[in-house]
Amino acid sequence: MNAPMPAVVQRDTPQALLLALAERFEKQFSQAMAVREQHGRDESAFTHVPPPACVVFAQSTTDVRDAVRLAAEHHVPVIPFGVGSSLEGHLLAVQGGISIDVSRMNNVLEINAEDLTVTVQPGVTRMAVNAAVKDMGLFFPIDPGADASIGGMAATRASGTNAVRYGTMKENVLALEVVTADGGVARTGTRAKKSSAGYDLTRLMVGSEGTLGVITEVTLKLYPLPEAVSAAVCSFPSIEAAVQTTIQIIQMGVPIARCEFMDKKSVAMVNKHAQLTLREEAMLLMEFHGSPASVAEQAAVVQEIAGDMGGQAFEWATTPEERTKLWTARHNAYFAAIQSRPGCRAISTDTCVPISQLAHCLLDSVKEADASGIPYFLLGHVGDGNFHFGYLIDPDDSEERAKAEQLNEWLVARALRLGGTCTGEHGIGLHKIDFLKAEAGEAAVDMMRAIKQALDPHNIMNPGKIFSMPG
Amino acid sequence: MNAPMPAVVQRDTPQALLLALAERFEKQFSQAMAVREQHGRDESAFTHVPPPACVVFAQSTTDVRDAVRLAAEHHVPVIPFGVGSSLEGHLLAVQGGISIDVSRMNNVLEINAEDLTVTVQPGVTRMAVNAAVKDMGLFFPIDPGADASIGGMAATRASGTNAVRYGTMKENVLALEVVTADGGVARTGTRAKKSSAGYDLTRLMVGSEGTLGVITEVTLKLYPLPEAVSAAVCSFPSIEAAVQTTIQIIQMGVPIARCEFMDKKSVAMVNKHAQLTLREEAMLLMEFHGSPASVAEQAAVVQEIAGDMGGQAFEWATTPEERTKLWTARHNAYFAAIQSRPGCRAISTDTCVPISQLAHCLLDSVKEADASGIPYFLLGHVGDGNFHFGYLIDPDDSEERAKAEQLNEWLVARALRLGGTCTGEHGIGLHKIDFLKAEAGEAAVDMMRAIKQALDPHNIMNPGKIFSMPG
Repeated sequence: MNAPMPAVVQRDTPQALLLALAERFEKQFSQAMAVREQHGRDESAFTHVPPPACVVFAQSTTDVRDAVRLAAEHHVPVIPFGVGSSLEGHLLAVQGGISIDVSRMNNVLEINAEDLTVTVQPGVTRMAVNAAVKDMGLFFPIDPGADASIGGMAATRASGTNAVRYGTMKENVLALEVVTADGGVARTGTRAKKSSAGYDLTRLMVGSEGTLGVITEVTLKLYPLPEAVSAAVCSFPSIEAAVQTTIQIIQMGVPIARCEFMDKKSVAMVNKHAQLTLREEAMLLMEFHGSPASVAEQAAVVQEIAGDMGGQAFEWATTPEERTKLWTARHNAYFAAIQSRPGCRAISTDTCVPISQLAHCLLDSVKEADASGIPYFLLGHVGDGNFHFGYLIDPDDSEERAKAEQLNEWLVARALRLGGTCTGEHGIGLHKIDFLKAEAGEAAVDMMRAIKQALDPHNIMNPGKIFSMPG
Repeated sequence: MNAPMPAVVQRDTPQALLLALAERFEKQFSQAMAVREQHGRDESAFTHVPPPACVVFAQSTTDVRDAVRLAAEHHVPVIPFGVGSSLEGHLLAVQGGISIDVSRMNNVLEINAEDLTVTVQPGVTRMAVNAAVKDMGLFFPIDPGADASIGGMAATRASGTNAVRYGTMKENVLALEVVTADGGVARTGTRAKKSSAGYDLTRLMVGSEGTLGVITEVTLKLYPLPEAVSAAVCSFPSIEAAVQTTIQIIQMGVPIARCEFMDKKSVAMVNKHAQLTLREEAMLLMEFHGSPASVAEQAAVVQEIAGDMGGQAFEWATTPEERTKLWTARHNAYFAAIQSRPGCRAISTDTCVPISQLAHCLLDSVKEADASGIPYFLLGHVGDGNFHFGYLIDPDDSEERAKAEQLNEWLVARALRLGGTCTGEHGIGLHKIDFLKAEAGEAAVDMMRAIKQALDPHNIMNPGKIFSMPG
């Protein structure tokens, strides 16, 4: 079903374009091989794709617009680049072209504390947003593992550990500024909390993976820091017990803020990497937000459910330092896993299923992974029905790669049969193009292609991602 | 800025098409003038638009598909019809064509209580959804005033009194089935809680007002019925005091479920219509959902804030019967207002602004409305920054109509200056086409037109709504 390596169809980058970019951008322009290579890879397991022809370091919307206009004149691809933390090959120059690095567009433009909104440039990272608003008693909850850029998070419809309560980028982006394929600048949405004003271009751009435009400004929702926070870890005798506990928590309507699963192997990797002493068993990491009374009440309900399921050793992280240590360890789990096998790359799965199907889906896939002999970790935003196997492969071992891709295919096919999706939060990129066809069907993918053709007729915006275009 | 009456550009409906529809649909087809007229109007203040050429009563996706295919062959418009409760002229056949009435597609197809999802046909109303899931301890929160159809609510990105806590149709539609302009059937989304699988076609269809396809199936999120519910009304010495109370409630992060404002005039109209004895002053109607302890805590915080703002006569509606009476009265406020001036039509405003701008925006517009001498009511989903003036005009008095349109224009211009939107939940329809241009800008409207052109090249899906198409 899925091609393990991307089709590379390099388009020519004319010398005239490179000269024009060099003249316009001077020191913000680079053709140095090291710079190009750094911009031609990400955290995906794809290797051996040639880098982009050059890199433009944009510092403003005008910079992005001018780079896109020059590229458009020559029908040459542009690929937006934030911090390079994509897991699905979004940044790879499979059709050549220009990488537009927006990491220097890192200003927090406007904080409206009263309205619980903030407007940032796309290169601001999620942690930088939080640093900027913390003193106002506010926070921004969306937290993929990496300290990703807000532009990249919007482009991939990212989420993370808080999504079970606070939603994903889909729910938390209010407005965008976007440079379109013809070098125009469009604004979508407003700072109002809701709107029925025409097509939801904001939601169309969120998750479009750079294929419809370059995001140059993002207005986000913020939340008041909860009055009380408490976090806990709880070990379970089996994966199933942990998952069943989660299902009951959600079905009871407990407004849990985080409900994360780690399997035994992941806990061991995290212990080693972060020098922790967590019990090396299936585990839930949970967090509760609210008033002191509400947090105590949520915790009591959850503790009772967990107890009924054989959960043991409910341990509380009560101080901010303990909590930070715990969640940092969780966020670094991916990197802990990568380091557990030197030289490996992770093929990361990202299926998300209706929660009633979660235990079934997980357990069957664990059996297959165990039987394969490939080292792996298993993490899950299980409160959302979303989980990640990471198959730790030697990228040069084609047999291992094929085995891991096979496991992923089985898993995706299972998730789709159960009413789920092939990707909860990482995006399609290069890796899941065939899965998208299986999931959405030809009619829906044809609608996507028609939209792409309408908004980017020369197919210059991050081409080759999400779906292939004819011609 | 805004044309008060829609441009009517009737397209021809060929006899061959009418014959083909009559043959295919037999008793599900009508050309009777009374039926056509009933399908050619809605709750908007527009009158004098000729009705559609005929009505097809669809009973299945296949019916819708066949009607669209026949219409597409002849390049004749199709207009989906649910219960006819649009306030913005969505249902008016300004370019002629076929009304596809989906009210007989009223089956609840699948309830997945464990996953908190339900899949319905588009003619199921919001109250019918709730009746179907209540015994399972679940509810669907989105509640526009009318008992609207789920298809219509999705098409207009509707919300209502619960949106401050539970979001709008944007947040609560998981998946759709849609008949496209070429008579294809596309599925968008899955039952998984989140997904990053390609363009968010679900969100593109939600709020597209029938201009991109006919919605034939909707999968919605459900919520566990809260363990405890309490509702209260509180009177205030001024509009400003009520609004400031709301602002503080939101900024404190109180998870209030409903926070509705009624002005003195609206309370009087509601009292008369529903035979209630509410104090005829500016008023907040509030509801709290949660555990008993959490509800008590929220109520205590809110009562303290209200007290500081001069709020008086905090009255609790503790029994389900009292609450139902209160919210039914609120939902019927629009109809109560219409009945207060026999023969009138309401021109309803729908601006939504960042909450810090709410008091300012409201008060200036109240001054203008008072000065105009036109009878009006003022209601607001103020927790979201969204409010409705209803100017009660004699539809045949062009001077009154012009005055009311002028008030609306001033209000929209003010809301846009303050970072808001011309429509929080009613949609653009015929009435706000020029406002959309002012709000979104040419670049964004051009993107919308390009999408429309790509997905509906012959402009047959509810043409003339949201924006005008060239040619």
